[in-house]
Amino acid sequence: MSALTNSLNLKAANLCKATIKMCTKAGSGHPSSGLSLSHIVTTLMYNKMRFDPANPWNTSSDRLVLSEGHAVPIVYAAYADLGGVAGKTKENSRALTMADLDTLRELNSWLDGHPNPAEGMPFFDAATGSLGQGLSVSAGLALAAKADGSDRIIYCIMGDGESREGQVWEAVDFIAEKGLTNVVAIFNCNKQAQSEYVAEQQSPKSLAAKCKAAGWNAVIIDGHKPEAILAALKLGLGKKKPLAICAKTVKGWGSSLLTSGNWHGKPLPAADVEKALADFDKIIKKLEKAGAKADPKMLPAKPAKTTAKKPLQQVSLGDPMEILKADKAYAEKGKIATRRAYGLALVALGKANKDIVALDADVKNSTFAIYFHDKYPDRFYECRIAEQNMVSVAVGLSAGGKVPFASTFAKFFARAYDQVEMAEIGRANVKLVGSHCGSTLGADGPSQMSLADVAYFGSMSTADNGQGSPIAITLQPADGVATIKLTEMMANHQGVCYMRTLRSDTKTIYNSNDKFAIGATYTIVKGKDIAIFAAAYMVHEALAAAKMLKEQGIEAAVVDAYCLPINAQEVINAAAASSGRILTVEDNYGHGMGAAVAQIAAAQGNIKVQSMTISKLPKSGKQETEILKYLGVDADSIVAKAKSMVR
Amino acid sequence: MSALTNSLNLKAANLCKATIKMCTKAGSGHPSSGLSLSHIVTTLMYNKMRFDPANPWNTSSDRLVLSEGHAVPIVYAAYADLGGVAGKTKENSRALTMADLDTLRELNSWLDGHPNPAEGMPFFDAATGSLGQGLSVSAGLALAAKADGSDRIIYCIMGDGESREGQVWEAVDFIAEKGLTNVVAIFNCNKQAQSEYVAEQQSPKSLAAKCKAAGWNAVIIDGHKPEAILAALKLGLGKKKPLAICAKTVKGWGSSLLTSGNWHGKPLPAADVEKALADFDKIIKKLEKAGAKADPKMLPAKPAKTTAKKPLQQVSLGDPMEILKADKAYAEKGKIATRRAYGLALVALGKANKDIVALDADVKNSTFAIYFHDKYPDRFYECRIAEQNMVSVAVGLSAGGKVPFASTFAKFFARAYDQVEMAEIGRANVKLVGSHCGSTLGADGPSQMSLADVAYFGSMSTADNGQGSPIAITLQPADGVATIKLTEMMANHQGVCYMRTLRSDTKTIYNSNDKFAIGATYTIVKGKDIAIFAAAYMVHEALAAAKMLKEQGIEAAVVDAYCLPINAQEVINAAAASSGRILTVEDNYGHGMGAAVAQIAAAQGNIKVQSMTISKLPKSGKQETEILKYLGVDADSIVAKAKSMVR
Repeated sequence: MSALTNSLNLKAANLCKATIKMCTKAGSGHPSSGLSLSHIVTTLMYNKMRFDPANPWNTSSDRLVLSEGHAVPIVYAAYADLGGVAGKTKENSRALTMADLDTLRELNSWLDGHPNPAEGMPFFDAATGSLGQGLSVSAGLALAAKADGSDRIIYCIMGDGESREGQVWEAVDFIAEKGLTNVVAIFNCNKQAQSEYVAEQQSPKSLAAKCKAAGWNAVIIDGHKPEAILAALKLGLGKKKPLAICAKTVKGWGSSLLTSGNWHGKPLPAADVEKALADFDKIIKKLEKAGAKADPKMLPAKPAKTTAKKPLQQVSLGDPMEILKADKAYAEKGKIATRRAYGLALVALGKANKDIVALDADVKNSTFAIYFHDKYPDRFYECRIAEQNMVSVAVGLSAGGKVPFASTFAKFFARAYDQVEMAEIGRANVKLVGSHCGSTLGADGPSQMSLADVAYFGSMSTADNGQGSPIAITLQPADGVATIKLTEMMANHQGVCYMRTLRSDTKTIYNSNDKFAIGATYTIVKGKDIAIFAAAYMVHEALAAAKMLKEQGIEAAVVDAYCLPINAQEVINAAAASSGRILTVEDNYGHGMGAAVAQIAAAQGNIKVQSMTISKLPKSGKQETEILKYLGVDADSIVAKAKSMVR
Repeated sequence: MSALTNSLNLKAANLCKATIKMCTKAGSGHPSSGLSLSHIVTTLMYNKMRFDPANPWNTSSDRLVLSEGHAVPIVYAAYADLGGVAGKTKENSRALTMADLDTLRELNSWLDGHPNPAEGMPFFDAATGSLGQGLSVSAGLALAAKADGSDRIIYCIMGDGESREGQVWEAVDFIAEKGLTNVVAIFNCNKQAQSEYVAEQQSPKSLAAKCKAAGWNAVIIDGHKPEAILAALKLGLGKKKPLAICAKTVKGWGSSLLTSGNWHGKPLPAADVEKALADFDKIIKKLEKAGAKADPKMLPAKPAKTTAKKPLQQVSLGDPMEILKADKAYAEKGKIATRRAYGLALVALGKANKDIVALDADVKNSTFAIYFHDKYPDRFYECRIAEQNMVSVAVGLSAGGKVPFASTFAKFFARAYDQVEMAEIGRANVKLVGSHCGSTLGADGPSQMSLADVAYFGSMSTADNGQGSPIAITLQPADGVATIKLTEMMANHQGVCYMRTLRSDTKTIYNSNDKFAIGATYTIVKGKDIAIFAAAYMVHEALAAAKMLKEQGIEAAVVDAYCLPINAQEVINAAAASSGRILTVEDNYGHGMGAAVAQIAAAQGNIKVQSMTISKLPKSGKQETEILKYLGVDADSIVAKAKSMVR
């Protein structure tokens, strides 16, 4: 064995010891998964990767995406051993020491249970831990690197059990299709998942065949042989196809205790630690006997360049009316679907900020991301019918310094909500735009209707993300002007934003100078008897209802509640101006905007709120009006409800 | 060509005509996708499938799962041509006629925009339309067939663009692993997706190689040749490996208009219909010239047996205390995690009803579905780390007459919410049990915490599913007794239910005779000054807070709000008994239980409600108490808030 191999083997054994100790100290964690990665992590972090432990913010560094996030203790051990710098901000950071490993999973520790840059490990790019997402994140990082002319390489480590997640294969397809040979995928084939051995379908042979079927090069190696790992890695970079390494490993490698029985996710009891460490001391002694020497100079090569992530560029799109009027169809009809206005806004954004990129899941001609695709093809990423991959690719692009806007039907984002939550946990700067929201899309029926999304994303608007912002912001524009203003707002806000757009055309309500802000509402019509809170399409139904009510002697205000969160004062003021009565109307299921309003009102105790949401599971129907009537939320129903409250 | 081939070709051409006409009449729909399936659908429905158009409720029939649901018009055309019976119930059903096709997508039509048994097409087993889910549904139907000794075959048709969805590959792995050779997968390779041509990764060659890598047999055929379709189908059934047919087809087949340009999802304008029909008349004339004759006797073979789906069996699990006491750990500790109580309840259910089946996504030793796995291995389906497939397999099992309980970490269901919604739309009888809910799982950190699920599922509790029940019911047991009672309730309720279980042990609060009901709450402690509404773990924090408050002279009631929906009267009564003051406390983000309570209160206008939900994005931490304190919802915080309301 070469001196390098010997040193790597020696280092790996020592990192195993640290891993075992830190997990037992923490009282939880996954030492056995870490041990299976010992030689892979050591080979990457001490030899193959180019990065500067003293400056994890250098964007020119090679990246490690640990998709099987539970295996993170071995990476923490290597990083601390290298004196890697940790901290939530550069200003408040320092080099880790081996002693820091004892703080694993503590409330005040930077060493969270799973990788998370936002909790103090800037060595990582994204939060992982919910499985199957890392390869997509890697793809996003790779796209950003290519766009910026960076030669950084993205190494992604996945579990074999994890590779049952369909998203992994969405990412495999995506990487092959886009030719992202700057990604290296490493499958950690230790055979054991949490509750069982993996299936034949997750064997190295099957994984390699699947990768090849998608257009990759794939090799099967012994994952505990540094020389094999290094030889395999040479097959990747610079070649025509991306490289997948299916590494046969041993769960709990080196420890007689951790290799007997299923030790997934369990640390050794304190009493067993010494016995386990002795196993590694034996391995170390044997290596030393064979001539192995610890190489104190075994450090990663520094990247050639030092570059830093830019702060978020603030943009102004100017007069939204000008953008709308330049659109031929708008000029003719005087109305526009908010989804199409989004497409126009996105193009304007693309001009204002070169870091804006757009993604879509094969519905770009429905979401109107196609406008951006046509104008800026180099910054548009067609993700095809694979929403989970799209969301996680956006996370990777965000980590790579881009401002990604990802769109599909609002309904289809629901299969990627776990991915959305991981974006939030990693404090990614991702913008999601869901079209065809609510029931008014009509004829296609409920399989295409997003009706629980306001509750879901609204939920995330109620807690702080630790960076002074709600975890997610939900925006519901009612017309073309609002769409352009709110798209601009999303681009200028650091954090996860979700915008709902409509299939149907809506009339223009707003003027160029109307102001929009996070937490605000907009009172379109004043009325002393009752305030009708509405959003998106329902603003128009509410306006129709207010008109009918006026004819019947009732003055109803119409308040556009286009944002979640809503500031309490907005509700209190609206109630005060309208006899303390509020009626909320929504084209979605409950627990949405109306719930937010009711909570503010109920905390006051002197505001009466009635809520209208769609009353039953929808079906296909042709006209917006007949569907809203069927669901109990058309203008006539609003009128009846408002009258019952006022009289 | 054989007489059969000729007749099938003739029929296919006629169905194409009907498809074009019905879509134009509807003003929307996907004729071009339907046309690409013309020969496949014709061959299956007129020749290969064994089913009785007069009795679509015969469970012994072969099944067609149209995963690419948007192509449904061609199936409607065939079904109407065969005089297939439609209707929401058997009592209110009749044979369709070709004239019915004109009602496609109308509000009162049984012919919804996408397949849906619940809207009147019992020929189908599940709602489809959101892509990538049908093969998983097919797997569930196949499992049920095997379990019941039924020889029915499940044919699943998918689009090539659709096959980019990772869930398809989760299902491919699952079917191969479980040896479900009673499923035939047909990929409709028409090359065109919605906004682009499909990628090389979705070519017949790549799809076939991927299927083979997972252990399938796969063939590539011309999908417009009935003889090729029939020959390929012979390679399937009865063989060792499941069969995938990658059928090369033409989008818009037969129509010069629909094959020029991208006609995905667009019907022809009325003015063009005649020209399009003329194309098919030419095809028909050519076939007739070559000797083809319409065969009036070309009907599907009837299945050998006639069987019907049983009504849902009602079960009683008896005294929950007996179940708990039989558990050694409970007997020792006197407390139990609700996730473990769920495992015990599931075993009891399995004994009471042979149709109960369980599924898990490789965390059965964490969710405690493992108890059922150990006791009833034949009725347990390990789905491995692939949650989307698991949920849709459960839908298929439900359609096959089983009562599936699917479990994983609550957080990981979030990547399958679109699948959950499709279950709801098809009115499947599926039970979902999410463990490790809330923040109290602690050390593993936020990647494993489910915090928006109460808002999401709560949303679905606010609308009716058209069968007299909320679209989904959410249950949050606080102790072992409640868990067993609520698990029993789920089994006895027809429809989608979601239960949240806890990682941590909780003390037993309830007695054997305590009653639980949908919409109800349980007042554990009475108190005249304020009512604290809590659920799951927070019930215990609320009880601790009430105790502290009592010492300070404040009498706080503790109300267990274990169910969403909540009946309004429960909130009104609780407020009346506690000076009109309610404090809601939740270990999740907002828009959840507290929002439901606030909405009821605000509708009254004289009840004051303050809500506590977790105030920021969590991180790892070791003790439940320190985490809840960090997030602002521990007993001390509750005490402070309650005091501020009372004084």
